[in-house]
Amino acid sequence: MKQVLAIDIGGTNAVHALVNEQGKITGKQSLVTAHYDTAEALAQHIYNDLSNNVNYISAVGIGAPNGNYYNGCIEFAPNLPWKGKIRLAQIFKNKFGVKCVITNDANAAALGEKIFGSARAMNDFIFITLGTGVGSGIFCNGKLVYGHDGLAGEIGHVIVEKNGRHCMCGRKGCLEAYCSAGGFVKTYLEKSRTHISQITAKEIYIKALAGERAALETFDYTAKVLGLALANSVAYTNPEAIFIFGGLAQAHNFLMQPLKMYMEENLLNIYKNKIKLLPSALPENDAAILGAASLVI
Amino acid sequence: MKQVLAIDIGGTNAVHALVNEQGKITGKQSLVTAHYDTAEALAQHIYNDLSNNVNYISAVGIGAPNGNYYNGCIEFAPNLPWKGKIRLAQIFKNKFGVKCVITNDANAAALGEKIFGSARAMNDFIFITLGTGVGSGIFCNGKLVYGHDGLAGEIGHVIVEKNGRHCMCGRKGCLEAYCSAGGFVKTYLEKSRTHISQITAKEIYIKALAGERAALETFDYTAKVLGLALANSVAYTNPEAIFIFGGLAQAHNFLMQPLKMYMEENLLNIYKNKIKLLPSALPENDAAILGAASLVI
Repeated sequence: MKQVLAIDIGGTNAVHALVNEQGKITGKQSLVTAHYDTAEALAQHIYNDLSNNVNYISAVGIGAPNGNYYNGCIEFAPNLPWKGKIRLAQIFKNKFGVKCVITNDANAAALGEKIFGSARAMNDFIFITLGTGVGSGIFCNGKLVYGHDGLAGEIGHVIVEKNGRHCMCGRKGCLEAYCSAGGFVKTYLEKSRTHISQITAKEIYIKALAGERAALETFDYTAKVLGLALANSVAYTNPEAIFIFGGLAQAHNFLMQPLKMYMEENLLNIYKNKIKLLPSALPENDAAILGAASLVI
Repeated sequence: MKQVLAIDIGGTNAVHALVNEQGKITGKQSLVTAHYDTAEALAQHIYNDLSNNVNYISAVGIGAPNGNYYNGCIEFAPNLPWKGKIRLAQIFKNKFGVKCVITNDANAAALGEKIFGSARAMNDFIFITLGTGVGSGIFCNGKLVYGHDGLAGEIGHVIVEKNGRHCMCGRKGCLEAYCSAGGFVKTYLEKSRTHISQITAKEIYIKALAGERAALETFDYTAKVLGLALANSVAYTNPEAIFIFGGLAQAHNFLMQPLKMYMEENLLNIYKNKIKLLPSALPENDAAILGAASLVI
């Protein structure tokens, strides 16, 4: 039976699994990325893990931060132990003897939504991940948009506020500085005017459930900032739907509902009531693996 | 010899011409749009004009405001004499007995840049028209992006300033309210603090040449607003180039140079020094006709 090796490389863990054409996942394993001094060492370890199944693998798909689809390299990923430009696709191709395709994590997840999720019948959609960062993948004319340099879909780094909050990218006012987990927490700390040293997005959600005003305002503000950004995004590619992936997308009443309202409020007339706003249908724990598999299935 | 009938329908004039595969234009004629009560009457007039050549026409391409590629209709174009939804492609197909394809003017011009202009070898680019409005056409993966409803590429209606200037679309703060000819003049009136009743973009250009401060500030401000919008656009589709079409694109020192500077200043690191900013290579008077022809060549 045809199956592919799917790998999700993150700053903390590298997860690998076998995935078949129906999206069935087997043999999922998690490794600590920092334990491997080189990408070659990681490839060797995964190869050893899979020794019994290596002959049944038809291709390797990898989602990785800053993964470039065109040249198969990871380029200067700030959170990985391997510095500079790593020829990741070539390394895995050499080791496994089959085709290897890579892209960044958000692009991979967008592909996952197209192959295994709710976008199967869609040719034009935008997929947005709300997590440590804000990532995105854009489909137009039935194809993922990689762009000329393989770097398309950085909606998290659209500047939404001139001279706004500092972003991890070094600039100011990026969408990510407001709508990532860290941005969300920052908004809460501003709204609550307390000096809690640590609080998570999940804890803020629980406070919102309990009716705490600062928590409710945090959701509303996040929806407002993201809603305008989504309305602007629609003016570029006129998608059929926008998918939101990540824990916050599960907060229907607190996030998705006001988000829809703020998006509609800011949409150009010709787009009003035409754009579906949907939570991703990918299971949260397997989205990255399914996305990586989608690259080669 | 294969040639197509290209038609550019505008609020004031409707221009038609024959165009061959090399982009050679013959028999160009201009009609007054308002003289035709119906689109059928316009089609009949053009048919009569071309009586000797009708048999040599292989297809009809039309660029028209609010022209929808998918359904071949003009939908509620505010500046045309024909109200409601007009089945334009069907009307011309019936009259000429050949295929007819329509799209909006900016999309058509973007296609013109791809077929006859400087984007021939490009798969990913953004084309922006600065004129009465701000229009755009976006190419990804070698194809024009029409979007799910055929309404993609409205970069002129990205909101760049919350609660900003009133836009003709009824909302506030659209790019068009700052960078259209009218927006440009409005900026000048603000900067010069005079109450001139009428001044054109061209006259402001002449004042800038003469070193007038308000005129120079007007160009700088326009470049600043557009530069940030272009940097944000890059984060969506990572184009190889952005083309600027329209009179202002000819103002190299006053507009294109500061525009490049402001765009670079606002670009995410991974895009810096990668995106070409170019004036359109289409001749200003024939861009619309070449664009319309590109739809069917």
